[in-house]
Amino acid sequence: MASSIFCLFFILIFLQVNSWPLLRNHGSFDGYNASKNKLESLFGIHDFKIQNNHFPDRPMHPLDPLTIQEIETTRSILSSYQPFLGSSLRIHSLSLDEPDKSEVLRWKRGNPLPTRKAFVVVLLNGQAHLLVVDLGSGKVSSHTRNPASGYPSLSADDASTALEATFSNLVFRKAISARGVEIDDVICSAAAPGWFGPEEEGRRITKIKCYTAQNTPNYYLRPIEGLLLTVDLDSGEVINIYDTHSEIPIPKAEGTDYRRDGVEYRAPGVEPLKPISMEQPNGQSFKVEDGYIVKWASWEFHLKADQRAGIIISRATVFDPETGKRRSVMYKAFASELFVPYMDVDDGWYFRAYMDAGEFGLGATAMELVPLNDCPRNSHYIDGLFVDPDGRPVFQPNVICVFERYSGDIAWRHSGTQLNDDLIREARPKISLVARTTATVGNYDYIFDWEFQTDGSIRVTVGLSGIILAKGSPYEHINQFEIPRWDSPAGSLVSENTIGVAHDHFITFHLDMDVDGPINSFVKVDLVKNYNIAGKIERKSYWSPKRKVAKSEDDAKIKLQLDKPSEYHVINPRRKSRLGNPSGYKIVPSATATSLLDLHDPPQLRAAFTNNQIWVTPYNRSEQWAGGLFTYQSHGDDTLAVWSNRNRGIEKQDIVLWYTLGFHHLPCQEDFPVMPTVTSTFQLKPVNFFERNPIIQANPNFAEDLPMCRPGRH
Amino acid sequence: MASSIFCLFFILIFLQVNSWPLLRNHGSFDGYNASKNKLESLFGIHDFKIQNNHFPDRPMHPLDPLTIQEIETTRSILSSYQPFLGSSLRIHSLSLDEPDKSEVLRWKRGNPLPTRKAFVVVLLNGQAHLLVVDLGSGKVSSHTRNPASGYPSLSADDASTALEATFSNLVFRKAISARGVEIDDVICSAAAPGWFGPEEEGRRITKIKCYTAQNTPNYYLRPIEGLLLTVDLDSGEVINIYDTHSEIPIPKAEGTDYRRDGVEYRAPGVEPLKPISMEQPNGQSFKVEDGYIVKWASWEFHLKADQRAGIIISRATVFDPETGKRRSVMYKAFASELFVPYMDVDDGWYFRAYMDAGEFGLGATAMELVPLNDCPRNSHYIDGLFVDPDGRPVFQPNVICVFERYSGDIAWRHSGTQLNDDLIREARPKISLVARTTATVGNYDYIFDWEFQTDGSIRVTVGLSGIILAKGSPYEHINQFEIPRWDSPAGSLVSENTIGVAHDHFITFHLDMDVDGPINSFVKVDLVKNYNIAGKIERKSYWSPKRKVAKSEDDAKIKLQLDKPSEYHVINPRRKSRLGNPSGYKIVPSATATSLLDLHDPPQLRAAFTNNQIWVTPYNRSEQWAGGLFTYQSHGDDTLAVWSNRNRGIEKQDIVLWYTLGFHHLPCQEDFPVMPTVTSTFQLKPVNFFERNPIIQANPNFAEDLPMCRPGRH
Repeated sequence: MASSIFCLFFILIFLQVNSWPLLRNHGSFDGYNASKNKLESLFGIHDFKIQNNHFPDRPMHPLDPLTIQEIETTRSILSSYQPFLGSSLRIHSLSLDEPDKSEVLRWKRGNPLPTRKAFVVVLLNGQAHLLVVDLGSGKVSSHTRNPASGYPSLSADDASTALEATFSNLVFRKAISARGVEIDDVICSAAAPGWFGPEEEGRRITKIKCYTAQNTPNYYLRPIEGLLLTVDLDSGEVINIYDTHSEIPIPKAEGTDYRRDGVEYRAPGVEPLKPISMEQPNGQSFKVEDGYIVKWASWEFHLKADQRAGIIISRATVFDPETGKRRSVMYKAFASELFVPYMDVDDGWYFRAYMDAGEFGLGATAMELVPLNDCPRNSHYIDGLFVDPDGRPVFQPNVICVFERYSGDIAWRHSGTQLNDDLIREARPKISLVARTTATVGNYDYIFDWEFQTDGSIRVTVGLSGIILAKGSPYEHINQFEIPRWDSPAGSLVSENTIGVAHDHFITFHLDMDVDGPINSFVKVDLVKNYNIAGKIERKSYWSPKRKVAKSEDDAKIKLQLDKPSEYHVINPRRKSRLGNPSGYKIVPSATATSLLDLHDPPQLRAAFTNNQIWVTPYNRSEQWAGGLFTYQSHGDDTLAVWSNRNRGIEKQDIVLWYTLGFHHLPCQEDFPVMPTVTSTFQLKPVNFFERNPIIQANPNFAEDLPMCRPGRH
Repeated sequence: MASSIFCLFFILIFLQVNSWPLLRNHGSFDGYNASKNKLESLFGIHDFKIQNNHFPDRPMHPLDPLTIQEIETTRSILSSYQPFLGSSLRIHSLSLDEPDKSEVLRWKRGNPLPTRKAFVVVLLNGQAHLLVVDLGSGKVSSHTRNPASGYPSLSADDASTALEATFSNLVFRKAISARGVEIDDVICSAAAPGWFGPEEEGRRITKIKCYTAQNTPNYYLRPIEGLLLTVDLDSGEVINIYDTHSEIPIPKAEGTDYRRDGVEYRAPGVEPLKPISMEQPNGQSFKVEDGYIVKWASWEFHLKADQRAGIIISRATVFDPETGKRRSVMYKAFASELFVPYMDVDDGWYFRAYMDAGEFGLGATAMELVPLNDCPRNSHYIDGLFVDPDGRPVFQPNVICVFERYSGDIAWRHSGTQLNDDLIREARPKISLVARTTATVGNYDYIFDWEFQTDGSIRVTVGLSGIILAKGSPYEHINQFEIPRWDSPAGSLVSENTIGVAHDHFITFHLDMDVDGPINSFVKVDLVKNYNIAGKIERKSYWSPKRKVAKSEDDAKIKLQLDKPSEYHVINPRRKSRLGNPSGYKIVPSATATSLLDLHDPPQLRAAFTNNQIWVTPYNRSEQWAGGLFTYQSHGDDTLAVWSNRNRGIEKQDIVLWYTLGFHHLPCQEDFPVMPTVTSTFQLKPVNFFERNPIIQANPNFAEDLPMCRPGRH
């Protein structure tokens, strides 16, 4: 009997994790090739399967993404929109136009939803049009032109236009065969060109870099060096071919395959590990209601996939056991931009300083997660519903997973003895809830974890994996380099004829904190070194906290310094603890990096939002994207840095906290052919938000509560 | 059938995790009280149970701790040692005198062990004697006096001497009753006094701080403020009583209890979480051989508990699938010192700047781990075998646990498409092995994790939990503070009449790296900002690596700077990869903190080893303890900083890497009455040590391999 229940349960699990269709790749930026026009490899276009979707057919919450039906309606409204009649539209984005924050804050479950609106970016004759479509009235309620520089992100159509232009170009084909490469082995990628002054201004362009896929699935490690095309995305013409005609050999295919079935290289002498798994036979402790509302422990928040941001967390509230009420922590949080400058200034490389969110889209490039490997067993998967260049809904299954974590960590502990000799040995297991997405932006894979903890903390972790961007090199050994032997300006020799190009990653997070409501202040708590005048004279020094409430934006432009430490609190000045401490959350940085580029270098101008690690701005619904609404070829005239130059007041305002998490990456041989995940993290932690430790009443583990398990069927 | 196997298995697990005796507290520094002289609350003295021990009865490895028999033998040799005849010895430490490194490196399994020796610290008439006892010849082979300042760590006898002196002191008893406190409710702690110049020099003293345990097990939160005794540890006399006769009230007992049965405060509205557990029904993938050799995945290392350091990792080697050989990574690694300065300079507080390893001992204060809560199910426990002041062996069960971790993380991933349209979705689960110990140094709990990863990385994590050190205060609300209201020089108001005193934690690790052998160099790889002269002129700047091999110690005194980033490599200049890259490991810092105390402040002089985050020294068997062999009342004349002032050569030498992990802690209400664990970490990662990613051949999870589980019996 026991074992039959058990098996039934097991079968359910097994179905659950295997029930998703694995039909084809979603959102990869790879794999264009003339001989087969791979439109379907982009954003899962033509891959929309209504029968597979898990979306509510009507919105239940003001922040729910547009439904399939709402997308279709928007499309038909646009198709009959006078100014666009007769012209072929390219729809670069079509998503929910979120209601005003005040409306969302007023809304309660059961209330009618605020008017549903769609925000649409249309490209017409190379010009970006911004439209708001009112789904209530069925009318376009607003229509403006792009006020700043830049273009919408690269679309599926753009990429195929560029690739067709490339492969039909005879000079290009000659250059390929001159290198002894079969044209049918060639795969090219279309990348953002950045912006470097007038030369390439006034038209939408892309840069085409090619690889050979001969004898490897990992063509990123077989670059065709010294060949780069510039293509006009609207005219479809090749406007420049950069060809060094160089003798740089193409790195060998051997050793580049990392697929389970493809790895030649096996590890002798190391026994494979026995199975280990986080098990919850009593079921998950979290619920996902109405498709997007996650409830777990004291947390409740709205979670959705976004074509540009990947994951968006909204309306995060925590239950306060003291008051028996839910309290607001965060209105909206997401990865706003991701800046990736490479450190090679050769003509074929200088422009590589990408904005992965604005130029490609962290949701658009989010791949279907691999059950049991990208996410543990007992994960709940959430799909993405995006839009193709024709404005049709695109279904991307399983782009987010939600799971509970127990990794053997300790939430709190203390041991000791009491007066009466009784032993105290109290310890509590640490359990958390993770919402995860991954983005494969071409060669690179990003892993984004939002980890909610029972003590009221939120940990955000970014993981980097995938394939490093490789540059062909004449060298097979560092002895062949000029002196100093080890140092190549571009990076490191990671395999024969292969330079792993040095680069950075800067992920800038938009953290709209609403600590006990929207009206907050930012307090910099400096830990100030003091000299002792009061106490024991032999003790010369100590530090003490000095709190500075930021009046305006300039007070909150923070460059972290180890020898000038501070805490960074977002407080609600109106909400005091019983002791009079203001309710607050602090942002706790961990390992990070700051850009070393010159402030006036075009890539850094465009990414000026990385000039500080922390910024605080007054809430402004138009200020969502740190690199600007349009980052593609942008001049840096619409970044967080520009907005914040106004030095607006931020004391006792609805404020937004911005944090940039940075990585320097100097590749090494261990990163070849696929890199072990590198992670960094930051935390948001309650500080005098609760009257006391909110988890002193948490339960310990008891043996008799834990699962009873036997080996799997293999 | 299936379910019966299953139940049998379960019962075994259940026994395993519950089979340890929970007889009494080990190693706490709490709980001295006159009316009952609590010797047994110290270090588990008189608690030695031969029948409970899990130690090999003979040493199998040159680094194995002394066996029970070896300890007894050492004691009997000392008892007949001429110079000590007739005098009552106090043995402050008695542990293995490790053989010379060269002998250990030469030794192979099966070879006879190098001569076993004991290193003993004896206190005789206030003088520390250092003896080496040769267990082969049965003779004392070396006998010296303490060459530097300082005394051995506080012993059980010392503490009881001090407490007896205190409780029999009438002035003290008057002061207690003057405060309306029952003497039988009073618990005092004996703490290291630090060193502040001549006044207290020339004799061993301690500072006695008292609390009332009335109506709470958490007396640390009921301090009797303004009362401090100084006791001579050798004469047993009270040499000073500091009494402010202040009216500072004793904080209330209410809300201080954190025990599961004692917490009045319950969380309504939050459902308890359902069980979640890391399960391995096929068994663990690691072995512990000969008591101390841990073998897991590609890793093999020697692991033991040490009375002073807590955990010592030795001879860490990793299997290289490329060569089919084991390769050396690290000869010896441990927490060498732990400096905890408090930021209150009042006469009753100024001296609080502790050295928790050298003054108390991280192993001596290691508590028996709580199964299922301090460590997950399927943990393997290792006992500590220490020595009491009479030189008798002391058994501390389960001070270390070893377990495998899977927390849903991703070891590496990449998704994409191939030329032939085939989908690539490769992801690998991240599994690691953790060796953990905890230390309860009075009020504070430390958690030390050494996490070994399949990619060759080692992550060291330090967790802080337990009870904050509280100072009595007249205030119940911050409005009662002088302006500026929020800022108390001492810390924060965390409860009525309770200041959580601001403080730091600096954990200095001794990392004797032997990358492919002892002869290594330290290379600082600066990521240097350059201006562009070569490539596209509009791209102005980039960074590139500049490697500097450290010639001498001064080249390797590192202060971390966010805007001047570097990598820090320990390389073997003689061992090159096939590409010519030197084999190396890099230390990767994460969140940390640096001391703000004045360099000439006595506490900082004694802790000058924290003046840099990284140091590199040539190997010297006498340089193990960053704060000196004797830190108790030391003057700072025997620290890492002093040794390293010699600026010795470190290029192509056997070198030791020192890293200090720091925390600033400004307490908040969430830290009351017990603090949620705060962690930070650093990593040691292979850099061109392997020819390629060593885990590309790792297996993914398959559903049919995973456990089949059903709910526990509750």
